[in-house]
Amino acid sequence: MSKQKVCLAYSGGLDTSCILRYLLDEGYEAIAFMADVGQEEDFEAAKEKALKIGASKCYIEDVRKEFVEELCFPAIACNAIYENTYLLGTSLARPVIARAQIAVAQKEGCFAVSHGCTGKGNDQVRFELAFYALQPSIKVIAPWRDPVFYNRFKGRNDLLDYAAEKGIPVSSTKSKPWSMDENLAHCSYEAGILEDPNITPPEDMWKLTADPTKAPDAPEDFTIHFQKGLPVKLEYDGGKKSVTEPVELFLTANAIARKHGVGRIDIVENRFIGLKSRGCYETPGLTMLRAAHVDIEGLVLDREVRALRDQFTTFHYAKILYNGLYFSPEREFLEDSITSSQKTVNGSVRCRAYKGMFSVIGRWSDTEKLYDESESSMDEIGDFAPQDTTGFISVNAIRLKKFGNKKEEEGQSLVTRSA
Amino acid sequence: MSKQKVCLAYSGGLDTSCILRYLLDEGYEAIAFMADVGQEEDFEAAKEKALKIGASKCYIEDVRKEFVEELCFPAIACNAIYENTYLLGTSLARPVIARAQIAVAQKEGCFAVSHGCTGKGNDQVRFELAFYALQPSIKVIAPWRDPVFYNRFKGRNDLLDYAAEKGIPVSSTKSKPWSMDENLAHCSYEAGILEDPNITPPEDMWKLTADPTKAPDAPEDFTIHFQKGLPVKLEYDGGKKSVTEPVELFLTANAIARKHGVGRIDIVENRFIGLKSRGCYETPGLTMLRAAHVDIEGLVLDREVRALRDQFTTFHYAKILYNGLYFSPEREFLEDSITSSQKTVNGSVRCRAYKGMFSVIGRWSDTEKLYDESESSMDEIGDFAPQDTTGFISVNAIRLKKFGNKKEEEGQSLVTRSA
Amino acid sequence: MSKQKVCLAYSGGLDTSCILRYLLDEGYEAIAFMADVGQEEDFEAAKEKALKIGASKCYIEDVRKEFVEELCFPAIACNAIYENTYLLGTSLARPVIARAQIAVAQKEGCFAVSHGCTGKGNDQVRFELAFYALQPSIKVIAPWRDPVFYNRFKGRNDLLDYAAEKGIPVSSTKSKPWSMDENLAHCSYEAGILEDPNITPPEDMWKLTADPTKAPDAPEDFTIHFQKGLPVKLEYDGGKKSVTEPVELFLTANAIARKHGVGRIDIVENRFIGLKSRGCYETPGLTMLRAAHVDIEGLVLDREVRALRDQFTTFHYAKILYNGLYFSPEREFLEDSITSSQKTVNGSVRCRAYKGMFSVIGRWSDTEKLYDESESSMDEIGDFAPQDTTGFISVNAIRLKKFGNKKEEEGQSLVTRSA
Amino acid sequence: MSKQKVCLAYSGGLDTSCILRYLLDEGYEAIAFMADVGQEEDFEAAKEKALKIGASKCYIEDVRKEFVEELCFPAIACNAIYENTYLLGTSLARPVIARAQIAVAQKEGCFAVSHGCTGKGNDQVRFELAFYALQPSIKVIAPWRDPVFYNRFKGRNDLLDYAAEKGIPVSSTKSKPWSMDENLAHCSYEAGILEDPNITPPEDMWKLTADPTKAPDAPEDFTIHFQKGLPVKLEYDGGKKSVTEPVELFLTANAIARKHGVGRIDIVENRFIGLKSRGCYETPGLTMLRAAHVDIEGLVLDREVRALRDQFTTFHYAKILYNGLYFSPEREFLEDSITSSQKTVNGSVRCRAYKGMFSVIGRWSDTEKLYDESESSMDEIGDFAPQDTTGFISVNAIRLKKFGNKKEEEGQSLVTRSA
Repeated sequence: MSKQKVCLAYSGGLDTSCILRYLLDEGYEAIAFMADVGQEEDFEAAKEKALKIGASKCYIEDVRKEFVEELCFPAIACNAIYENTYLLGTSLARPVIARAQIAVAQKEGCFAVSHGCTGKGNDQVRFELAFYALQPSIKVIAPWRDPVFYNRFKGRNDLLDYAAEKGIPVSSTKSKPWSMDENLAHCSYEAGILEDPNITPPEDMWKLTADPTKAPDAPEDFTIHFQKGLPVKLEYDGGKKSVTEPVELFLTANAIARKHGVGRIDIVENRFIGLKSRGCYETPGLTMLRAAHVDIEGLVLDREVRALRDQFTTFHYAKILYNGLYFSPEREFLEDSITSSQKTVNGSVRCRAYKGMFSVIGRWSDTEKLYDESESSMDEIGDFAPQDTTGFISVNAIRLKKFGNKKEEEGQSLVTRSA
Repeated sequence: MSKQKVCLAYSGGLDTSCILRYLLDEGYEAIAFMADVGQEEDFEAAKEKALKIGASKCYIEDVRKEFVEELCFPAIACNAIYENTYLLGTSLARPVIARAQIAVAQKEGCFAVSHGCTGKGNDQVRFELAFYALQPSIKVIAPWRDPVFYNRFKGRNDLLDYAAEKGIPVSSTKSKPWSMDENLAHCSYEAGILEDPNITPPEDMWKLTADPTKAPDAPEDFTIHFQKGLPVKLEYDGGKKSVTEPVELFLTANAIARKHGVGRIDIVENRFIGLKSRGCYETPGLTMLRAAHVDIEGLVLDREVRALRDQFTTFHYAKILYNGLYFSPEREFLEDSITSSQKTVNGSVRCRAYKGMFSVIGRWSDTEKLYDESESSMDEIGDFAPQDTTGFISVNAIRLKKFGNKKEEEGQSLVTRSA
Repeated sequence: MSKQKVCLAYSGGLDTSCILRYLLDEGYEAIAFMADVGQEEDFEAAKEKALKIGASKCYIEDVRKEFVEELCFPAIACNAIYENTYLLGTSLARPVIARAQIAVAQKEGCFAVSHGCTGKGNDQVRFELAFYALQPSIKVIAPWRDPVFYNRFKGRNDLLDYAAEKGIPVSSTKSKPWSMDENLAHCSYEAGILEDPNITPPEDMWKLTADPTKAPDAPEDFTIHFQKGLPVKLEYDGGKKSVTEPVELFLTANAIARKHGVGRIDIVENRFIGLKSRGCYETPGLTMLRAAHVDIEGLVLDREVRALRDQFTTFHYAKILYNGLYFSPEREFLEDSITSSQKTVNGSVRCRAYKGMFSVIGRWSDTEKLYDESESSMDEIGDFAPQDTTGFISVNAIRLKKFGNKKEEEGQSLVTRSA
Repeated sequence: MSKQKVCLAYSGGLDTSCILRYLLDEGYEAIAFMADVGQEEDFEAAKEKALKIGASKCYIEDVRKEFVEELCFPAIACNAIYENTYLLGTSLARPVIARAQIAVAQKEGCFAVSHGCTGKGNDQVRFELAFYALQPSIKVIAPWRDPVFYNRFKGRNDLLDYAAEKGIPVSSTKSKPWSMDENLAHCSYEAGILEDPNITPPEDMWKLTADPTKAPDAPEDFTIHFQKGLPVKLEYDGGKKSVTEPVELFLTANAIARKHGVGRIDIVENRFIGLKSRGCYETPGLTMLRAAHVDIEGLVLDREVRALRDQFTTFHYAKILYNGLYFSPEREFLEDSITSSQKTVNGSVRCRAYKGMFSVIGRWSDTEKLYDESESSMDEIGDFAPQDTTGFISVNAIRLKKFGNKKEEEGQSLVTRSA
């Protein structure tokens, strides 16, 4: 009887190498799967390793374009941010990885998918919720939640022993005292020494951005153009160069931000499973693209649409992405609302990067005229009758006068300071 | 018969000097009023000028302490921000100024208050809504909305001619090509050459912060301590110095931020009256105090309380402050909610300022234990059963499996990429 | 020189008859305009009267179909309700009336439109905001806000005198001690004796619904079918009859509800201009169609989409309709969100009307399978592993255990009752 | 060695009787616990049965007063409602039951608590989340989620066999084809024949309310008085009788509503665990008290406080109660917000009950004057300048005119109907 097939998300590292071997030991046929989401990785070496350990096949799927277009761009279009600070770099990559993995599993006739996520983190949730939506009948093998497995492998040494025993090649480089997740949009650092939230991360931890104190002494200016809320062109090098293809544009934004040390954060966040967790993130290009998008909305987006979108779409889109609910009715609902909100978000933002700081130095739109210089001008009357504002204020004051009168009647005049 | 008294918000500048004289011409007795909200100003010279022009009295009210304690601190405690970027520096000062002005008007028996705000801006709305709540029976004289006045004084030259005619002293300094509003928390720049949103502000415009490119080459570290969401101590100079008194603490934060060029923004915003407007703001200390507060909440605030507060309290508190609705039932309602949310926000944040950039380099709390290193640790099982997460994921997947099944039935498999 | 033309919203009543004549006196040419939104009205008699008074033309525009399809149906699809109770009957009609009036004004080359709304109500705001969005250059003549007009006509007697003087025919029927607004969806009653919020409206006030105590003693059952959230068929008379055309369907729902006295409310509401106002409304068919829609969503709408739509779309759609902001970017944004939310709202609701009460007695959907009897069944295990819920609960309890521990440490055990 | 003690929530029915015996079989000492939340029950007979089966003790705790005061009253004060229809009757009782059970468990030194909830419902979640917050170290024994237990007892017959074998007395009454949960506020019916959402519940199912078609032919009027949003007096019987004590007031409201058949609903709702479920509920008094509270807020609550409370507090308070998160930081946060919102909610509502329908027939407040008859009056000008509204409208139209102009430029005139 042929073996049951499992498709394992493989990284080439110690954990998933041991898991791969463990799945084989358990009697499965294993298909290794790697997604190229733009991380720095020797995919071919990893593939070779997977096959050497015993995977019957190893897929390397390039999902960078869909990652940028389907995930990063909508996130920019709604200014997605989690808990006021985190730009969701890890969360954004999970849906495209899960989708490619399920596609491989389906092609290979796998009954299950497997991954090496720990049992306390967000990623297990994000991957598995995506798996179940993508293929409701799929089984998931999560060794780090299986007591047999995690009681056997209680630490790195147990894994090293197992690797030695099974002839699994182990890289000679010393493991870093934190764990990382990298993709085209960001790199995250957590666990290990970072678990003490008062430990300042060592400068050599940061991988994707220059140390701001060592970044160039001259600011660099560039221009980002938006159409319907999406970045469509980035002009740089004094306007001499420009890119328009989404992945290239993103990589160019990354290159500028990295050089100038833009996009580092260090936070304590709330995981979906209810634990708090300290994470350090560097998100070079996305930080700038998002900030430029926030700026252009000031010029071209209607006030009330913006307010509704901010309260509602942005908050919830970030939350559901963070929690791994990308493949869900509510994400489709929210994404329709993003699209609807961005009809007029057409314009260009002149930007500056300098020693860790991003700033906007100007913006314009050729097509949207919500901002009207002469009308807003304090020096011109224009079409506007200043006395109209008297009526506007009077009507808005009706409620407030009642409030003031009531306070007075109650002997709590608002004029008296609270002290 | 004695004249009717008017209390005029006086600044010493050309506009309010002419308005003062104009009120006298109109047959009123005028009481000049100035509020010290921490702006750089020669109050005594302005007072002398007001009396010279003909004010019967001139009050200078120091409202800095209540400005910091009653307005800036609650804004920090709820991370107040308008349209994702603006920290509300001008809006925050208006309530304490209006309250002090009404108190003077009441003491002097004035039937009306007056101000020199233009007819297109937010400040007229903010001042007058506050006046009407504070004393519902008060009358407001707003010359820049009175056609008689604004048709007579169509530009600066008309005011200069009037000043010359009436013997009003005019400062010899050339007027700046923008207008400013300064207080302890910020300085704003708008109008004039800034009305073109694509004009980069000249470097010499910025008054409160160093040019980041000329800021010190060495980062400066300091620590902010919070109790119930409010800053209670700032330690600096390598821990050798510290301040605790609110105004002093705020001024010290300002001094650090100014030196390192932290807190400049340049935006297009939506005014309450429906116009868009370009504003440049520098908000040195408040930018850092707010960012540190956001950070400490990550460590000590419950996830759900934070999410509710973010969606609701923060958004609406910023909006009503911006719109001038401080003295209102809804502000009281929201402020109760701020207080309720901050019960556990006790802890300390280690901060760094460097060439325009503020960053957090660590944080801790002696009393709040929501964050638990060993529990969050990926390396320890602790009290937590990883297999519980399997159930958590399964239950959360119930809805999503239905969604996936429906898509499949409809021939729109989620696995197929949208392209 | 030819006279300037004004298009007046004319009702045939005393007020707009006097206004019509007044416009002529002021030297304008007046075009009378009436919209048929389903109110009981002798349009031809009113037209004759308008022409007799001196209107150069009188348009009667039938906007019932667009009223039902473009306004009432989206309101049903998002369960629109204002302040928990009011179904917005008046607000819903204003956009189609204003649009038809502007279309007539444009066709006739009118420089202005006019109406007879009072100066304290919502309708002036609704009409004029619509006018300005529909044709930004239009002028509005609102006599009841013009001091010359309202100081001349201080009460009904002044109008009667003017009518007598000008030969305007006055109906001999005694004016009712309240004012009414009727359309296909509802009738409103306010002002006059209703201004005392503690006066119970007299039974003979209600026009569109039977007195529940006199309604039939037998309940009446019927079935409403929905597609994409819109009512597409109403089956009644024991299934022997059915209607599908929107206006007919609406009128049939009205007929059933009227007969059984369904749809009366009596409330105090908050007007856009900040005053409170007492209103009595009867909204027969819409009350039932909305309630049936709420019900079918229970069966076929995803929980999270529903929750987001409830918090956001429903609340704000009702608010902007109430405030007269139909022709606005935010209404378009919200309406896209309604459409997006209703993709799966397909199903049928069995309903009952009886003596003022509407109830649901069953529902089903042939196409949507979110509800799964065997899965929800307490008697079957099915695909569901009950022990999964243990994990679900444990993970959800992580935060709560911390909360409980903290309370205990602080000596405020949650177990001790607050008393 | 002494046995470990378990405190079991006991009902006297077949399920919990078998579970009680099962716990004994498993080697535990069992303490039976019953909460009196106002359900109709022979507590003494049940106690006798528990002791007979082998419980070492049986506690009957009367928690009616705290149920009404701590749960039902805040729910009224914020108009709590889940998914537009459900008044949360079951959810409201769970926190007081769980708290009393933990108090007994602590008093008796139990290491665990146990219950008879099924593994697919909301109640297991509500009880256990409460248990874990109340005593984070408590263990929970949930037999219906234990495969050993539920595989042994696959249906009612297995339980009956076990009862026979163990000598557990079984009531001779035939089990109803649905399950019920009753308390002072409501009775719920679900499962069994009700699982088909298109089956109309049989008339004899409803226990707490009269069949509306058989209710009295004469309406009954009564008056509910509120202080700070809470019902403080109910006057009835033509004003001849009144009650003020919370439990009595609640029971009196129940009695009136029951007599007139008020408070039945039949819905499909979304459970916390992601399944849809059909439930029928009768909530007599609470339906009327909540509706009267909604009404009095119209008269005395500020518009903006109401809008914020509706969007935020009401929605989330209902959601967290439904999901069993009563003992949580977010509930404390929301409850502070309820209290803050209700400061001015003082007034009285005249009500009517008739054949299933509740209506308001008038309301007044002796202390709150937000509603001002003469000011709202269409017939009086009063303090209000109607021309102010012109300015109010003009300023609000600024944005809309831009919107209209843009549409026109794009050739999509708003005047053209969409058809």
